[in-house]
Parts: sequence; C-alpha cells; structure tokens
Amino acid sequence: MIIERSTSWFLFSKIHISEYPAYFLLLPKFNFMKLSKPTLLLDKKKCLANISRMKAKADKYGLHFRPHSKTHQSAEVGKWLKDAGVSAITVSSVSMASYFARAGWTDITIAFPVNPAEIGQINRLAHHIRLNLLVENADVVETLGRRLTTPAGMFIKIDAGYHRTGIPVEAHREVLTLVQTINRFPLLQFKGLLAHNGHTYHAASVNEIKHIHDESLKKLSVLKSFLKQQHITTELSIGDTPSMSVTDNFTDVDEIRPGNFVFYDVMQAQLGSCGYGDIAVAMACPVVAKHAGRQELVIHGGAVHFSKDSVTGPDGNRIFGKVVTLNRNGWSEPVDGTYVKSLSQEHGIIRATEDFFNQTKPGDFIGVLPVHSCLTVNLMREYFTLAGEKITTAVT
Amino acid sequence: MIIERSTSWFLFSKIHISEYPAYFLLLPKFNFMKLSKPTLLLDKKKCLANISRMKAKADKYGLHFRPHSKTHQSAEVGKWLKDAGVSAITVSSVSMASYFARAGWTDITIAFPVNPAEIGQINRLAHHIRLNLLVENADVVETLGRRLTTPAGMFIKIDAGYHRTGIPVEAHREVLTLVQTINRFPLLQFKGLLAHNGHTYHAASVNEIKHIHDESLKKLSVLKSFLKQQHITTELSIGDTPSMSVTDNFTDVDEIRPGNFVFYDVMQAQLGSCGYGDIAVAMACPVVAKHAGRQELVIHGGAVHFSKDSVTGPDGNRIFGKVVTLNRNGWSEPVDGTYVKSLSQEHGIIRATEDFFNQTKPGDFIGVLPVHSCLTVNLMREYFTLAGEKITTAVT
Repeated sequence: MIIERSTSWFLFSKIHISEYPAYFLLLPKFNFMKLSKPTLLLDKKKCLANISRMKAKADKYGLHFRPHSKTHQSAEVGKWLKDAGVSAITVSSVSMASYFARAGWTDITIAFPVNPAEIGQINRLAHHIRLNLLVENADVVETLGRRLTTPAGMFIKIDAGYHRTGIPVEAHREVLTLVQTINRFPLLQFKGLLAHNGHTYHAASVNEIKHIHDESLKKLSVLKSFLKQQHITTELSIGDTPSMSVTDNFTDVDEIRPGNFVFYDVMQAQLGSCGYGDIAVAMACPVVAKHAGRQELVIHGGAVHFSKDSVTGPDGNRIFGKVVTLNRNGWSEPVDGTYVKSLSQEHGIIRATEDFFNQTKPGDFIGVLPVHSCLTVNLMREYFTLAGEKITTAVT
Repeated sequence: MIIERSTSWFLFSKIHISEYPAYFLLLPKFNFMKLSKPTLLLDKKKCLANISRMKAKADKYGLHFRPHSKTHQSAEVGKWLKDAGVSAITVSSVSMASYFARAGWTDITIAFPVNPAEIGQINRLAHHIRLNLLVENADVVETLGRRLTTPAGMFIKIDAGYHRTGIPVEAHREVLTLVQTINRFPLLQFKGLLAHNGHTYHAASVNEIKHIHDESLKKLSVLKSFLKQQHITTELSIGDTPSMSVTDNFTDVDEIRPGNFVFYDVMQAQLGSCGYGDIAVAMACPVVAKHAGRQELVIHGGAVHFSKDSVTGPDGNRIFGKVVTLNRNGWSEPVDGTYVKSLSQEHGIIRATEDFFNQTKPGDFIGVLPVHSCLTVNLMREYFTLAGEKITTAVT
C-alpha cells in the first residue's frame, strides 16, 4: 500500500496493512519510522517548557541554576539547556561528567561522594574543566589533598533530613573541622554546602513538600550563619525537583540543582510537582495479548524498559505507569482507570477499563507515562522526539 | 610502587598505594584490572556447576533442556551451555533471538507472545533458524498464518496459575480452537503447550514451590490428555527456576526452560532454589561514605546497577542485596546482618554490623549479591570472570 502524502504531517499515523495496523512516527524530510518495539518518545515542546519555567524561577530569585543531568543524560538536551542560558550542570558520576565534558560543558559538579579509586579520571577531568567535587569524610579530603594535581572546588555534603549521605546539618563543629581540613590543601577550594532533600519524595501533599523544604532550609541557614561567624563564606546548593517545583522560599540559597523536572514523570505528577500534561516522555509499547476474564492487556514493556519503581494508587494498588493513547499531537492525558499494574522482565500488565479494553487489540501501540523517567531513560539509552529526531545519551 | 610478581596469582589483591587501598582483578597473562567503579563479577566455576547440575537433572528425567538466555544474555555463556551438551535455547524477545542466532544458535523459542509489528524480523529469523513462537490469540495466529514466509513452530501459552499471560489451563475448548486455527495454516506447525509458573516466586517455602508446581502440572496433564483424546499430540514445556531447582516431579513434561539458575541470586536463595554459595555473580562496589550514627555505609551501586527488586528480611525490612567480602577466591558467604537497605539512582545504603562497619572505609571495595541477577546483568551489559575475562552481552 502507498502512504499518502497528505497523511505525512500526522505525528502518529495508524495505517492498516492487510489485517493489522502499523504505527509510524514522522521523521524529518517526510520519512516514517515504523514502530515495532518499545520506543521512548520525547515531547520536545513540553521539555522546553519545563526547562524555561525552572530557568525563569531561578532568574526570578537570583539563583545560580545548575540542573542535574542524570535524567536526560543527553548532550542534545544539554544543548537545549544551553540555549535557555544554562552554563553549568550537575552529574552523578565521574563517567557522566566525562561524557558532558566531551560535549563541551566546562563547569560541572559531581554531586556524588568522591570515590578515591577514581582519582585518575578525576585528575584528567579537572585539567580540562572547572570541576566541583562532593566530600563528607576527612580521610577522603586528605587523599584528594595529596593526590589532586589541579585545583578543584569542594562542596561538603550536608544531610538536612533525608539520611542518605552527608554530615548531619546540626553537626556544626564537624562541618567546620572538615572545612578546615579542606583549607589545609592549596588545590582544594572550599565552595560551600550541598544538600539534597530526597525525603520530599515521600511527602503526601504539596504542603508537606513545602514544609520539608522549609524545615531543611532553616537548619541549613543556621549552619551557614555559624560558618559565617567563623569567617567562612559558603554557597548553599540545594536540589530536589519536588521542592524546586513548588516552593518560593529560597532564603539563603545560592544555587539550585533539580534534574527530573526536564521530563518529570508519574511520581512527580502524583507528588504535585507537575501536572500529567507536563510529563515530556512516554514509552510507545506494543500490545501483545489481552485477557477478557481479568480485563487486562499485556504489553511488551517491562522492567528492562521502565525499571521497577511504582507509586501507590487510590485503592492502595501499585502503579508502574499510567496509560495514554498515542495521537497526531503526541499523546493524550492518562486514561482514567487504566494503568500498568505489574512489570516483569519484558512484560507489562495493564489493568484497563472496559472501554479501553474493548477498543485495544494485539498489534496496537499504546503509550505509558513512566513512574521514574531517570531510570527509564537510563535503560532505553535513546529516545525520539515527536519529529523523529533520535536523541542519544551517555549510556548509548 | 611495584606490584610484586608473587601477588599476581591473587584474584583480588588489596594493595596500599600511599594512603588508600587499590583493588585489582587478575587478568590473563598476569595483567591486572584496577577496579575503580561498580563492576559485575562472575564466578565461572559456580556458573558451570549450576549448568551441569540442571543439565544432569534434565538428562535424568529424559527432558529436553532449552534453557532461557534472558539472565546471562551472553554468547560466551551460551558456549558454556553448548559445551555442556545444550543445543536449543529460549529467549524473551525478537532482538535477543537475533543476537543468539548470530552467535550460532539454530533452535530458538521466543517465549513471549508474538508482537505482530515484528513480523519482518520474525520472517528474517525463521529463514535462518528453527524458530518457535508463542501465541495465545486467534487474530495473531491468523496474521502469522498469512504473513509468515517460512515454517515456524507454534507453542500456545497456557496460564497455569500465574495469571500473567496465556489461555487459562482449564479452558480446554479454547485451547483446542486455537490449535485448530493454527492447523489451518500450512506454515504454522503446532508444537505444544508452554507454561511459566512465575507464582512460585511468591512461595514462602520449598514445599510451597513444590505444591504450586504439582498443582499446575496436574492441570496441564489434564489439558494434554484432553488434546490427546482429540488426536492432537502436544509437547509440554515448563520453565521457572524455583520449580526446576527443587522438584523431581516431571510427569508429562517434555521440555524445561529455566534461565535464572545459571547465576541464581538472593531472591532464589531466599526461596530455597539454591544456596548462597551457588550464586555466581556479585557486584564489586566502592564504599564512598560511612555514617557512624546510623552504622551505615554508602556505596556507588544503585538502581542503575541493580534495578529495584527487593526481598523481605527477617524483620520485615526490605533487602536490595546481600553484602559479601571480596577475597582471593572470589567472595565470601553473605556477611550476617549486613545488607543493602535502600537504593537510589547511583547510591546504595548498607546497613552494617558494628564489626563490618568498623573494618570498612571509603575507598574499599565490597561485594553485593544481587536480588535479581537478570535485571542486574541487563543494566551492567558486561561482566568479568574472576580470571578477568570480559563477558559481553546482547545489550552491550
């Protein structure tokens, strides 16, 4: 059959060849990409809107904006950030820093405690770019002090309540001692305090996110004042996407480092950090089976595509993704009552409403909004804009 | 410093260079690989023992052995299976089938419901190898019947209690109708019934695994007899690693398809499918921080290395990996009371005993036995034997 020219501007064209439909994604120059397997799609317009909204907030409050790159992991999306006026980024590993340094970024913070075994790669990076490292341990600082061959900025990781890593925010003397240890080494340049309030991800409401953020900020301010009394000037860098999306309290904050906001995901929408319409990625998944008895659809789309994070639904049920329909504009809002109820390695099981169940059959493609876009991007390693541009990542 | 020749036969050599230890893995020809980041290690001896144990069981009961490849995903490990006398494999996707076909396998079952959008790749594969496909839906069978260009074997997926995919095992007439649909098309060669009792993964004891397996087998036998009365000869292919590891009941079974057994993991050990000493993979992870107040260590080793599956510990706590110490023979048994209590994207948090906490410091490498080795291998994409051989995979 011939694909008619007049359909070529449809983003998704459902074309029936003999007895089964084929799904095509419009590629530049009027080519089509035929979807045949799970494919991660990016709505660039939504992504750009998410970037410009967060950049505007940083500008409004006079904050240095150093977005985390661990969600998009892509030099291409990095360019969109540059176009929006961003000049510094955050990453979560030395290898991710190397990838973005090769892509032309010259000011990078590795927001993960230094692993002394990577000193070789760290030295190579620090020779080429302005590199900030994260420390919380005196032994590691001394190792860096002796083995770094180029100056690097030092942020001290502060635990402001998440209890994952960092020196407890109340341990003023311990922080002071570590600053003094840093200052003993000429190549180590103390920059400031870095915190990540990951416990906002457990909040039950936007108000609770704000409350966690406010409480944490109060304690960080007290610590900053304490250091100031010791004549130590510190930048304060904070970061989680939920807080950064909903708060307007940036008292004593110098820098923000949200990452997930570029794409958002079901977890963020459920938290209230964004609306479902702001989620910029969806996985196109083929339906491979349907089970009328259970009103369930089976898709090719499992833990090797989405990872295994879930959110809790209204009935206490676990939700591993929200279902959308693919259309000529990208995709719909989530279909009420239709969601991924479980994932195994390659399978996803969709609990569907009667309507959605009846209108869907094996061979169709449906969209799934991921629960955790960072892990999904990391697994898929590449994604496609709705115009068919292929976006490669650090893990490609 | 000079690495002395006499230490070169140590698998793991902890060598102190200035103030921090470096970890080396012995490579062939007496080179060393310096461990600097999370690295997945394979104890080949344990893997070979796991393979030969399962092969012996298949031989003992006269079963066709078609191991699933989704755990190791590697042509190299495939060779070890061939060396053990295996000539046919199972995979879970068309792309994995293509990878193993390129690696020389000529008899492959894709144990995942056919996705009609992949008919092109399926035809290319079926031209080159003996290919078996999995179906459960009449429309898909008719599509295959019309669009396949080469003969392919057809297995009907039967749901014997797991409720993920397949025709319910009690729906005899429905199965019969599908067989008749298959038989209308000359290129579709009906082979038999294929079941996967994934619900054994929820069993609380070895006896419960056996019970689930026995109950499922009874129903599958009844279905097989029903088809026989209709003059339809069917093979019966079953597969989950827990059942295959613990049962000796193979009544009416023709083929077994376990996959995870090649490496096993913490989930299997907890179920009783294997001992901790049988687990053939461990992730070497650098310790990057320690927190005395909580007796917790932080490792570089997170959801991007392990995925997010967990098991429940004795106190109802979630366990995302068991901790072992690395030594010159590979690694120890799990350290009592020391485990991965949570994972974020790059971080793992280890709850440690006082002893283990005190003897470990940033810069050290510890081992982590993964909860789900299939997802871990899929994320890491390559692994190293204790002799330093690099094993690449289908996802490399």
